[in-house]
Amino acid sequence: MSPKRARSSRKAGLPPGTLVHVGEKKAEKVRITVMDYDESRIEEKELDSADQCGAYRDKPTVTWVNVDGVHEPSVIENIGRCYDLHPLLLEDILHTIQRPKAEDFESYVFMVVKMLYLRREDGKAEAEQVSVVLGENYVLTFQERPGDVFEVIRDRLRSGKGRIRKMGADYLAYSIMDAIVDNYFLVLEALGDDVEELEEEVVDRPDRGTLGRIYALKRELLFLRRSVWPLREVISGLERGESLLFRKPTLVYLRDVYDHTIQVIDTVEANREVVSGLVDVYLSSISNRMNDVMKVLTIIATIFIPLTFIAGIYGMNFQYMPELAWRPAYFVVLGLMAFVASLMMAYFKRKDWF
Amino acid sequence: MSPKRARSSRKAGLPPGTLVHVGEKKAEKVRITVMDYDESRIEEKELDSADQCGAYRDKPTVTWVNVDGVHEPSVIENIGRCYDLHPLLLEDILHTIQRPKAEDFESYVFMVVKMLYLRREDGKAEAEQVSVVLGENYVLTFQERPGDVFEVIRDRLRSGKGRIRKMGADYLAYSIMDAIVDNYFLVLEALGDDVEELEEEVVDRPDRGTLGRIYALKRELLFLRRSVWPLREVISGLERGESLLFRKPTLVYLRDVYDHTIQVIDTVEANREVVSGLVDVYLSSISNRMNDVMKVLTIIATIFIPLTFIAGIYGMNFQYMPELAWRPAYFVVLGLMAFVASLMMAYFKRKDWF
Amino acid sequence: MSPKRARSSRKAGLPPGTLVHVGEKKAEKVRITVMDYDESRIEEKELDSADQCGAYRDKPTVTWVNVDGVHEPSVIENIGRCYDLHPLLLEDILHTIQRPKAEDFESYVFMVVKMLYLRREDGKAEAEQVSVVLGENYVLTFQERPGDVFEVIRDRLRSGKGRIRKMGADYLAYSIMDAIVDNYFLVLEALGDDVEELEEEVVDRPDRGTLGRIYALKRELLFLRRSVWPLREVISGLERGESLLFRKPTLVYLRDVYDHTIQVIDTVEANREVVSGLVDVYLSSISNRMNDVMKVLTIIATIFIPLTFIAGIYGMNFQYMPELAWRPAYFVVLGLMAFVASLMMAYFKRKDWF
Amino acid sequence: MSPKRARSSRKAGLPPGTLVHVGEKKAEKVRITVMDYDESRIEEKELDSADQCGAYRDKPTVTWVNVDGVHEPSVIENIGRCYDLHPLLLEDILHTIQRPKAEDFESYVFMVVKMLYLRREDGKAEAEQVSVVLGENYVLTFQERPGDVFEVIRDRLRSGKGRIRKMGADYLAYSIMDAIVDNYFLVLEALGDDVEELEEEVVDRPDRGTLGRIYALKRELLFLRRSVWPLREVISGLERGESLLFRKPTLVYLRDVYDHTIQVIDTVEANREVVSGLVDVYLSSISNRMNDVMKVLTIIATIFIPLTFIAGIYGMNFQYMPELAWRPAYFVVLGLMAFVASLMMAYFKRKDWF
Amino acid sequence: MSPKRARSSRKAGLPPGTLVHVGEKKAEKVRITVMDYDESRIEEKELDSADQCGAYRDKPTVTWVNVDGVHEPSVIENIGRCYDLHPLLLEDILHTIQRPKAEDFESYVFMVVKMLYLRREDGKAEAEQVSVVLGENYVLTFQERPGDVFEVIRDRLRSGKGRIRKMGADYLAYSIMDAIVDNYFLVLEALGDDVEELEEEVVDRPDRGTLGRIYALKRELLFLRRSVWPLREVISGLERGESLLFRKPTLVYLRDVYDHTIQVIDTVEANREVVSGLVDVYLSSISNRMNDVMKVLTIIATIFIPLTFIAGIYGMNFQYMPELAWRPAYFVVLGLMAFVASLMMAYFKRKDWF
Repeated sequence: MSPKRARSSRKAGLPPGTLVHVGEKKAEKVRITVMDYDESRIEEKELDSADQCGAYRDKPTVTWVNVDGVHEPSVIENIGRCYDLHPLLLEDILHTIQRPKAEDFESYVFMVVKMLYLRREDGKAEAEQVSVVLGENYVLTFQERPGDVFEVIRDRLRSGKGRIRKMGADYLAYSIMDAIVDNYFLVLEALGDDVEELEEEVVDRPDRGTLGRIYALKRELLFLRRSVWPLREVISGLERGESLLFRKPTLVYLRDVYDHTIQVIDTVEANREVVSGLVDVYLSSISNRMNDVMKVLTIIATIFIPLTFIAGIYGMNFQYMPELAWRPAYFVVLGLMAFVASLMMAYFKRKDWF
Repeated sequence: MSPKRARSSRKAGLPPGTLVHVGEKKAEKVRITVMDYDESRIEEKELDSADQCGAYRDKPTVTWVNVDGVHEPSVIENIGRCYDLHPLLLEDILHTIQRPKAEDFESYVFMVVKMLYLRREDGKAEAEQVSVVLGENYVLTFQERPGDVFEVIRDRLRSGKGRIRKMGADYLAYSIMDAIVDNYFLVLEALGDDVEELEEEVVDRPDRGTLGRIYALKRELLFLRRSVWPLREVISGLERGESLLFRKPTLVYLRDVYDHTIQVIDTVEANREVVSGLVDVYLSSISNRMNDVMKVLTIIATIFIPLTFIAGIYGMNFQYMPELAWRPAYFVVLGLMAFVASLMMAYFKRKDWF
Repeated sequence: MSPKRARSSRKAGLPPGTLVHVGEKKAEKVRITVMDYDESRIEEKELDSADQCGAYRDKPTVTWVNVDGVHEPSVIENIGRCYDLHPLLLEDILHTIQRPKAEDFESYVFMVVKMLYLRREDGKAEAEQVSVVLGENYVLTFQERPGDVFEVIRDRLRSGKGRIRKMGADYLAYSIMDAIVDNYFLVLEALGDDVEELEEEVVDRPDRGTLGRIYALKRELLFLRRSVWPLREVISGLERGESLLFRKPTLVYLRDVYDHTIQVIDTVEANREVVSGLVDVYLSSISNRMNDVMKVLTIIATIFIPLTFIAGIYGMNFQYMPELAWRPAYFVVLGLMAFVASLMMAYFKRKDWF
Repeated sequence: MSPKRARSSRKAGLPPGTLVHVGEKKAEKVRITVMDYDESRIEEKELDSADQCGAYRDKPTVTWVNVDGVHEPSVIENIGRCYDLHPLLLEDILHTIQRPKAEDFESYVFMVVKMLYLRREDGKAEAEQVSVVLGENYVLTFQERPGDVFEVIRDRLRSGKGRIRKMGADYLAYSIMDAIVDNYFLVLEALGDDVEELEEEVVDRPDRGTLGRIYALKRELLFLRRSVWPLREVISGLERGESLLFRKPTLVYLRDVYDHTIQVIDTVEANREVVSGLVDVYLSSISNRMNDVMKVLTIIATIFIPLTFIAGIYGMNFQYMPELAWRPAYFVVLGLMAFVASLMMAYFKRKDWF
Repeated sequence: MSPKRARSSRKAGLPPGTLVHVGEKKAEKVRITVMDYDESRIEEKELDSADQCGAYRDKPTVTWVNVDGVHEPSVIENIGRCYDLHPLLLEDILHTIQRPKAEDFESYVFMVVKMLYLRREDGKAEAEQVSVVLGENYVLTFQERPGDVFEVIRDRLRSGKGRIRKMGADYLAYSIMDAIVDNYFLVLEALGDDVEELEEEVVDRPDRGTLGRIYALKRELLFLRRSVWPLREVISGLERGESLLFRKPTLVYLRDVYDHTIQVIDTVEANREVVSGLVDVYLSSISNRMNDVMKVLTIIATIFIPLTFIAGIYGMNFQYMPELAWRPAYFVVLGLMAFVASLMMAYFKRKDWF
C-alpha cells in the first residue's frame, strides 16, 4: 500500500489534455462492463468496444459503465467522446496520482477517490485510483485494475432488494463512495493489528529492525491520511449540496458517508499518535538496555578491581614485608577480600542494581 | 475505559440502513422503561415489547422512553417504526462506534454522546454510547448496558421538584446531556489522581513499567479528548439554536452545558500537557541513574587502577631494583598509595561526585 | 498559584441552578460593602445583610456592591433576588472553577475573571475568581476572599479625581477589569524573575531538583495562560460592542484593556518558549556531565592499563627472561612507562580532553 | 537550489520605485525575444532594443515578450514605459527575492513565480524568479538567466497544434504557469531520490556527515515549500476569477494547475515528514553503535577482570600458601578460570548480547 | 536587541491615561524637530518648546513633527493638547512596551512600530518604539532615543526629488513605515550571518557555550518575530483601506510594504527552523564525542586486559608450572600476546572503529 512515486515526469512538457497513462504499464485488455437498470428490469453486459456506450446514453434508465484498466488512452477517449467529457477530466483519469477531489462540470460531477482493499490472495492492503463520473442518468467508474469492492453493490442491483433500484444515478454514486469508505475500515483494522503487534514488540523484544517497522507503519498511516483528509472535504462539499446532481433524498446518505470518513480520520489520527509515542518507548527501551550493560560492567569491575589491588600488594617483591612471613596471613587476606566483596554487593543491593 | 477497536468490518458491504449490532454480543434481554409526565402527574412503566410505545406517542404529555441494550435490532426497529425514525439513524444507534454528533431531521433531533462513569463495583471508568432522540413531546434514549447516570434525573422527575416537570421534552434532553457531562468531571478527577500518582512515581521511583503507565494514561486522555471535542461542537450547534426543537428558555441551560464541556476540554488538555512532560522527566531520570552508575564505576576504577599499577611495578622480577632491599620501602609505598588515593578522593569531592 | 483541582464532583447530580459552594470551606463571615456615587457625592457603607441592597437598586446613582466571600449560598441568593439575576449565574458565582467568560443577559452582563495578585505577606502569587455583574446603574463584584486589587479604584472614587465619578457603571466595570489585568503584569514579573533565576541555575549548577522546578514553572505558565486566553476573547467581545451596556465612550478604554491582555499573552507565550528550551539545555548539561565522567575514567584507565601490562610482563616467573638480569633494565622500563604515559597525555591534549 | 541570501541591504534607503538590480551581477547582454501570433500566423523575432516593443502593443494579435536577464534596469524601464507598467512592479522584477504573488493592476495582472529546473549540464536543480505580466493581448515574461522550461510552449506555438494559438493571452499565461509547475515534479523526483538514498544510508551506514546531509535536504525541502505554498494561494486566487483578464474558459485550466500545485505541496510535506523521521532514526542508530561499543567493552572486561584477580591471588608472595605446593594446582586453577569464563559467556548469551 | 523586561509594575494602579514614562530614565533634553513642506518649498526647524507646534497645525502644508525622547511626559502632553490627541494614545507613546498596532481615531490614525537598526558605533542591533500619528496634513513621530533610520526620508524631502513632496501626509507616513521595514532586512542579514557562523561552530567545534549561543539566537529571532507578526496585521489592515486617511494612490505603496513584511516574516521563520535544527545537531555532536571517548576506552581496555591476564598467569607462584622452565617460553608468550593484540586490532578495524 506504499505511496507510488509520482513518475509524472513522463508528462512534463505535453500540452494540457494530452492523454498519457501514468502508472504501471499493463498488458491485459481493458474490460468495460455495463449495468443498465430501472425499477423493473436490469441488463448486464460486457462491451467489446467503448463505442457501444452510445446505445445507453439517451435511455431514461440508469446506466453504470465500469472500466477496469486505464492504460489504453483510446478507450478512455472514446468513452469521453460518447459522454462529452472535458479533456482535462480524461487526463486526470489516466494520470493515476490524483488527490481525491470532486469537480463540478455542471452537466456531470467528476470525483476521484482512492480505493483501498485487502487483496484476497494474501490479505495485504492495496490502493488504486477510482474515478467516478456522475451524470443525469449514468455513472462511469474507472479503475486501474480488475478486482474491486463493488461486488456487494452489483449483488444488490441484481437482486433488486432495498432502495438501490428505485433511486437514481446519484444514489448509485453514493453507494460506490460508501463501499469504498467502508473498506477503509477493513484496512484500518489490519493496520490496527500491526500497531498492536508493534507495541508489544517495542516493549518486550525491541531489536534493530523495530524502528524501521515503526517508520514503515508511520508511512502507511501518512499515506492513509493523505487519502482520507481530502476525501472528507470532497464528501462534505457534495453533502452541502454543491452539485445539483445529488438530489435531496440522497444528501442524508452522503452525510452518513461523511460521518464514516470522519471516523476513519479519527482512527488514523489516534493510531498516528500511538505510533509516534512508540518512538519514545523504543528509545527509552534502548536506553534501559544500555543501562543494564553498564550495570553489569560496573558491578564486576567495582568488585574485582579492589580485590586485584590487594592481591597486587602481596605480589610485591619487597624484601621486608612483615605480613608475608605471618602464617595465617594468606587466609586472613582471602577473608578480607571476601569481606570487601560482600560490602560491595550490599551496596549494590541497596542501590537496587540487581 | 480503553477505546474499543472498531469491528465495523462486520458491516462492510451491507446496504445502508441495515440494522446490525456492532459491539459485544450480550445475552440479557433489552429493557424498555417509560416515564410519561406533565406538570401534574407522572407515570412510570416497564414495557414488555417495543410495540407498546405507540400508546404514548400522541399524548400531549412528555414521554421518556429509555432502552437498555441495543443488541436486538428488532426492538430498535419497532421503536423506529413507532416514532417514524430514519433507517440511517437506527443504524447509528446499533453501530456503537459513532463519534458524538447531532443531526437535525426536522421533526426530531438525533444526538449521539459518549457516557463515561465510574462503575459502582470497582470505581473503574467505563464508556458507553448513548443515543438520544428528541421529538416534539418525547425523548428516546438508547444505552448499550443497564446502569447509567440518569438516576438523579428520574428522582427529580418523580419528586416533581424544580423546573423539570414544568418544562418540555427539550429540557429533559438538556438534563440528560447535563448529567452525562457532569459525570465527565468524576472520571476526570479519577484520572487526575492517576496523573498525580504517576508524577510522584516518575520522580521518586521510576521503573520499567513507568513509561508503559504514562502511555496508558496518555491513551485514556486521548480517548477522553476524542469523546469531548466533538461534543463541544454538538452542544455549541444546539445552543446557537440550530434546531427549533430546543426552545429559547432551554438555550441558556445548553450554554451552561457548553461551558462545562469547555471546562472538561481545558482540564483534559492541561492533563495531556502534564503527561507529555512526564516522558521527559522519565527519560531524564533514567539518564540520571545511568550517570550514577557511571560515577561509581569511575570512582572505583580511577582510584584503584593507579594503585594496582604501583603494586605491579614492585611485583616485577628484575634482579636489580634498589628499592626492594630498602627496609622501610614497603611502608613508604603503602603510604604513597594512601596519598594517591586521598588525592583522587579530594578531586572527586571537588567535582561534587559524591 | 497552582490550579486548584476541580472538586466539582460534589455537584454532580444536583439540579441546575442549585446553589452549592465549590471551593475551600471558610468560617469568616461574608462581607458586603457598598459604594454609591454620582458626580457630586459618594456614600460608602458596609451592609449587615444582603437584603439591604434593595435600597440602592432604584436610585439613579451608580452603585458598586462588593461581596468578599462566596461560601454562603444564602447571601448570594438574596443579592440575586434583589437584582433579579438568573439562577445559573448565581450557581457560577459559587462554583469558583469557571473559565473566564462574559454572558449577556440583556438587562445585565455577567463576567467571570481570574484575579491574580501577589500576597502582601510573602510576595507569593495567589489566584481567585472574581464575578462581575454590570447592570444599567450598578456593578456587583463577588470575590472568594477578602483582599483584592481594587483599592486604587476605591481611592479614585473617594477622591473624585479623574473621569471615574463622571462616567457610568460601565466605566467602573472597565476600571475593575483594568485593575485585574494590570496586576497580571506584577505576577508576570515575579514569574519572569523565576524564569531568569532558573535559566542561570540550569546552565551553572543543575541538580536533580532543577527539572522539577522547570516543570513547576511550566505549570504556572500553563495556568496563567488558561486564565488569560479566554479573557482575551471576553474583552474582545465586549470591545466590539456585543453588549449595549458598555457605551461607546467606554469602548475605547476596553480596547486598551484588550491591548494589555494581548501583551500579557505575548509575554506568557514568550516565557513558555524560553522554559521549553530549558528542558533541552538541562538534558544537554546532564549529557555534558556524563561526558566529563567518562573522560576522567577514560584518561585514567587508558594511561594506566598499558603501564600495568608492562609491569605484568616483568612480573612473570619464566626462568629464562634475558632482560631481568640486565642491570639498567628496571630503569629502562620505568623510562619506557613514563614515555608511554606522556604519549597518551599528548594524545588526549590533542583531542582537547582536558 | 539553495535559497539565496537576501542582499536587499543594497536597496535600503532608496526611494520606492528605484530600479536597482538585486542579485548576481552578470555581464551578458539582456536578450529580448518576441512571439506574435494569432490563429492564422506567427512571427518570431529577437529585438535589439526594448523600444521596439511599441510596434506590437496595439496589434490585435497576442504578443509574448520574453526577457532573459534583469540586470539592466534601463531595459526593464523601457519595456515598463512601453506597456505603461507601475514603477513598483518594475522594482519587483529587478528585485529577484520576491515571494510568489499575484497583483491585479486592473489593466494587467502581475505574477511572480519561482521557476525550478534541472540544469541540462549536470542534472542539478536551479531556481530563478520569473515575473509574468498578463495584459489584454500580451504576456511579458522576465527571467534572471537564459535557459528556461518554456521551449515546449514555443514548439506548440510554432506548430500551431492544439488550442494554444486559438486562445488568448490568458491561455498563454496559463501555459507558462503550467510549464513551471510541471517542472516542480521533475525537481521533486530528484529530491525524492535523494531522500530514498539518505534513508538507506541512515539505516545501513550512518557517518558523521549523515546528519549534515539530512539537514541539507531539510533545507531544500523548506525552500521548495516556501516557493510552492504562496504559489498555491496565487493560483487559487486567479482560479476563483479575481482578475477579469483570465476569461472563463481558461479558469478550468487554472484549476488543473491548482491541483498540480496541491500535489506538489502534498509531496513536499510527505517528504518533510520522512526527513524529520530520519533524524530520530539517525540518533537511534548512533545510540545503537554506542551500545555495541559498550557491550564489547563489558564482555571483555567482565570475563577477564575476575580471571586476572584469580591469577593475582596466586601471584602473592605469602610464605604459607598451601595450594602453591600442590602439584596439579596450576592446572586446576587454569580449569577454574576456563569454567568462570564459560559461565560468563553463557550469561551474556542468555542476555542476547552476541 | 534583547527584549526589555516589562517594568510596567511602575504603572499598575494608576488611573488610565496617566502619563508615566516606562523605560530607561534619561537625562538628555527632548528634541523636537519640524519639517513643513509642500511641493514648492520646505522649512526645517528645531522647536524650543512643544507649544510652538500650534503654528503649523492649521497650515495647508504637510507638517512632520519628530520627537526624540519620550521621557518627559509634559512635552508629550503639550503636543497631545495641540493636536487634540486621546489621553490613552499619549499613555501608549510613553509606555514603550507596546505591541505594534494601528488604531483609528477617525481624525487621525495612531500606529506603533518597533524600529530596529544597527548602531553606527559597533554594528550591534538596537530596538526602539516609534509611535506615529497620521492626521489630515501632519505626521507626528515619537522615538525613544535620538538616532533613527529616517535620514534618507529627510534627504529626499530636502532635495525635493521623486514623489514625496508632491504627495500628502499619508505618503510621508508610508515612507516612514517603509524605512523602518527596510531596516529589518539589515538586521536580518546580521542575524543570518550569526546563524551561519553558529552552524559552522556546531558542526566543527561545539563547546559548552554553543548551546547558550543557540538559545540567545533563538530568543533574538523570537523577539524579531514578535515585532514583525503584529506589524503584518497592522499594515494589512491599513492596506485594505480601513482608515480613510490613507488615500487610494498610497495604498499600492502600502501593499509593497506589506510584501516586505511578509518577506521578513518568511526569513525569520526560515531562520527559526534552521536554529531549531541546530539543537539536534549539537546534541548529536555531543553524542558523537561521547562515542569517541568510549571507543578509545574500549580499544585500550579490550586490547590490554586479556594481555595483562596472560601476564598474570605466568606471574603465579605455583611450584609446578611446566612452561616456566621451557626456555623459549617467554618469547612464545610475548608472541602470543602480540597475536592476540593484532587479532583485536583487526576486529576493531572491521568494525570501523578507527
